[in-house]
Amino acid sequence: MTQPDRTVCVIGLGSMGMGIAASLLRSGFDVVGCDVSADAMAHFAQHGGRIADTPAEAGRGAHVVISVVVNAAQTEAVLFGDTGALSGMARGGTILSCATVSPDAARSFEARTQALGLSYIDAPISGGATRAAAGELTIMASGAPQAFDDVRDVLDCIAAKVYELGDTAGIGAAFKIVNQLLAGVHIAAACEAITFAKAMDLDIARVYEVISASAGNSWMFENRVPHILEGDYSPRSAVDIFTKDLGIVSDIARGLKFPTPVASTALQMFVMTAAAGMGRDDDASVARMIAQLTGLDLPGA
Amino acid sequence: MTQPDRTVCVIGLGSMGMGIAASLLRSGFDVVGCDVSADAMAHFAQHGGRIADTPAEAGRGAHVVISVVVNAAQTEAVLFGDTGALSGMARGGTILSCATVSPDAARSFEARTQALGLSYIDAPISGGATRAAAGELTIMASGAPQAFDDVRDVLDCIAAKVYELGDTAGIGAAFKIVNQLLAGVHIAAACEAITFAKAMDLDIARVYEVISASAGNSWMFENRVPHILEGDYSPRSAVDIFTKDLGIVSDIARGLKFPTPVASTALQMFVMTAAAGMGRDDDASVARMIAQLTGLDLPGA
Repeated sequence: MTQPDRTVCVIGLGSMGMGIAASLLRSGFDVVGCDVSADAMAHFAQHGGRIADTPAEAGRGAHVVISVVVNAAQTEAVLFGDTGALSGMARGGTILSCATVSPDAARSFEARTQALGLSYIDAPISGGATRAAAGELTIMASGAPQAFDDVRDVLDCIAAKVYELGDTAGIGAAFKIVNQLLAGVHIAAACEAITFAKAMDLDIARVYEVISASAGNSWMFENRVPHILEGDYSPRSAVDIFTKDLGIVSDIARGLKFPTPVASTALQMFVMTAAAGMGRDDDASVARMIAQLTGLDLPGA
Repeated sequence: MTQPDRTVCVIGLGSMGMGIAASLLRSGFDVVGCDVSADAMAHFAQHGGRIADTPAEAGRGAHVVISVVVNAAQTEAVLFGDTGALSGMARGGTILSCATVSPDAARSFEARTQALGLSYIDAPISGGATRAAAGELTIMASGAPQAFDDVRDVLDCIAAKVYELGDTAGIGAAFKIVNQLLAGVHIAAACEAITFAKAMDLDIARVYEVISASAGNSWMFENRVPHILEGDYSPRSAVDIFTKDLGIVSDIARGLKFPTPVASTALQMFVMTAAAGMGRDDDASVARMIAQLTGLDLPGA
């Protein structure tokens, strides 16, 4: 299958962006990738992708720009900055913005995109690197119905599930941030619970087996505790992602005068872990931080 | 199937104890029930159970006593009190103690039981009323191997899954308390997240649909949020259960000089909910407390 009349630009070739770009290549799209890392660009080129030195160059003539960067500041830069991707896009093109940002930021990006005659889909993603590579992400999206129609083929290629949650930007971002509130709390709770179990001298592999089959289970408990059991803190998803995302929760909530004591406590656990030098390590490092603090003998701690 | 030579005594005919007693009756055991509630006793008698006015009377000649009360103080009273069940049990009988108590309390009960020539199984249960009624509980148990052998038929009758976690009391209790730490945090987080979503004007039924299929999901999120969506706070499991169980977590952790900031914050959410008069309501009432505090329009709040 080739789709020669459609150029898709992917900005950000980390594990998620690389998976998205590779999925599009497999489906026959003309794909141009761009990343600040020369290694990432070389890797993508080896797999048959076209590369460009700047977002502006990558976006020139593109019908769809997918931004897969980390946060709002990076999104701002790669879309609207001096060498941003939007300047030379094809008329009527569509932005898919995948970073987890605040609803306000998403609404602002949408307004500025529309002012340039382009469409914006607020499209935060989840699923991790493996599902990104398989073209099976989940997208919590919102934006104009016409924009969804325009990029349906692209969405179908990169995602197993696209939730269309509303017709303006900000709604997708809000759903994603609720997900991140829970995900972050559940990781912090999993780390607290498994180290507490160890402090009580329990066999923590057995605790994992029993709890993951019980009412105390969560998606994150089931997914992250094996990292702790194996003492493997190579980053599948980093501590700094949650200092950022729970920070967004905290900012929004304070703005709404809405109390979030549980999420705020979890945020502090990630901040403590980052403060101890583990910000770029796997987010299960909260368990390692607790083990170091309490002198607990945990694998790899 | 009849098992006429085995009398099983069930102390505590709340929803869990009633389910256990009914499961045993169905399997042909001779079952004697006892509860402080005359209504519960009448209900059990209507369904063919024998009843007794005191634990001592219920336990007279019993081979197995199953204590299905709420906490350590009640366990102490129904087993060892003036009218406690142990005094007249059959020689070599076995206690199954199902309340969630601290590991220290479980070890103490075991020692006192063994001093009377009886066996003790630390047998905290989970699964809720429906699975209790179906004989499909999960039991996180520890105790002497011989004791397990002696009551295997009883365990098989009331539980779908019996984890044998160690050969002394206290280990089952510790596993259960780790489960309760996570369960309590997950309920508080679910309530915080869903009200936060409402404060951001999201469609919370849609939030439930999306999150329960995403990485932010937990067993408790999936199970409790429907209570919030329906505004139905009739107690399936009460707020006071978690003020108790997270209180046990807090007591143990302080004793070990082990910090549990996430669990302690969740505990305070349940304490706040109980303080607002909802201690005996469903534990999802944490959401109602937040809604009342913030003036949020939630069903039934």
